[in-house]
Amino acid sequence: MKLLEEKIRQEGQALSETVLKVDSFVNHQVDPVLMQQIGHTFAQHYRGKGITKVFTIESSGIAPALTTALELGVPMVILKKQTTKVLNGDVYQTNITSFTKGTSYELTLSAKYIQPDDKILIIDDFLANGEAASGASRLVEEAGASIYGIGILIEKSFQKGRKRLEDAGYDVCSLVRISRLGRDLIEFEEADI
Amino acid sequence: MKLLEEKIRQEGQALSETVLKVDSFVNHQVDPVLMQQIGHTFAQHYRGKGITKVFTIESSGIAPALTTALELGVPMVILKKQTTKVLNGDVYQTNITSFTKGTSYELTLSAKYIQPDDKILIIDDFLANGEAASGASRLVEEAGASIYGIGILIEKSFQKGRKRLEDAGYDVCSLVRISRLGRDLIEFEEADI
Repeated sequence: MKLLEEKIRQEGQALSETVLKVDSFVNHQVDPVLMQQIGHTFAQHYRGKGITKVFTIESSGIAPALTTALELGVPMVILKKQTTKVLNGDVYQTNITSFTKGTSYELTLSAKYIQPDDKILIIDDFLANGEAASGASRLVEEAGASIYGIGILIEKSFQKGRKRLEDAGYDVCSLVRISRLGRDLIEFEEADI
Repeated sequence: MKLLEEKIRQEGQALSETVLKVDSFVNHQVDPVLMQQIGHTFAQHYRGKGITKVFTIESSGIAPALTTALELGVPMVILKKQTTKVLNGDVYQTNITSFTKGTSYELTLSAKYIQPDDKILIIDDFLANGEAASGASRLVEEAGASIYGIGILIEKSFQKGRKRLEDAGYDVCSLVRISRLGRDLIEFEEADI
């Protein structure tokens, strides 16, 4: 998606060989028009595939997941990051350790918001090592539902996330793919759409 | 807002005299069409007032704040809940203790995303005792900017949040006002718009 790539060229900050900050339009300040265009782009790609729900992980994925769900005409579900295990059977939970951020949490989904016949599109802002997207996929499969695809705003293609998800059989669609980061260096490669 | 009131009558769950669950369309599963209509309603109310940014608190306020910001044609800023104090001057922080949830965090705003001439609209999902909205207001004022108004989806009008915000000089606009909660009981009173 050329528009997102341009925005990253203009406002993205490469802080190291692995860290890209997009705080001014994705993660802290959010550009609503860009989010609407991202939703439109994902919806064009995924329309007519029988997707029943868009899932995302709180909280940076909420904006693009909402605009995508709105265009697809389906509900959006926010997978919650909780600190504690819930011990009753009303929720699905899986532990996520983010090596990028050095944090660990229980990704949580209420059993009420997923059915075995659901066909899920997962939307997230970044794909690095794929911990979050893999965790979200585990929850969906545990509920007996299926994943149609995983839509990513910014893939760091030099990290192992994409391979890990594709090896597990998932289709990944990234709007922007970054092949290399360094101090003041952002190199792009061809994206999926 | 009759539509939101109707949705609460249909799907809201009063768990106690203070707790209302709206997990099926606001907090966990999100109804994108309802969020778009909420954004439209807030934008109609606040249009032409010179608002420069919509602020919200992660993460349940993000969806309605995004749709409001999109219709007003301004950026949205997500105030972050952080566990630690940041010791440099690049951020504004204030401690929030939620008596409702029994949690405490540092509400955080990067200094880059607020200027003294900003006129801020704060959007949040719930107003109970007003801790989160008061904290967001402190951050805006600390930055020398001004608050035009505070837009709330669901006000629990039997709690002290509205009075606290109005006593501090802020204009509060609630889409739905709930005067009483109890097991399977939800009583509404007249809302602001």
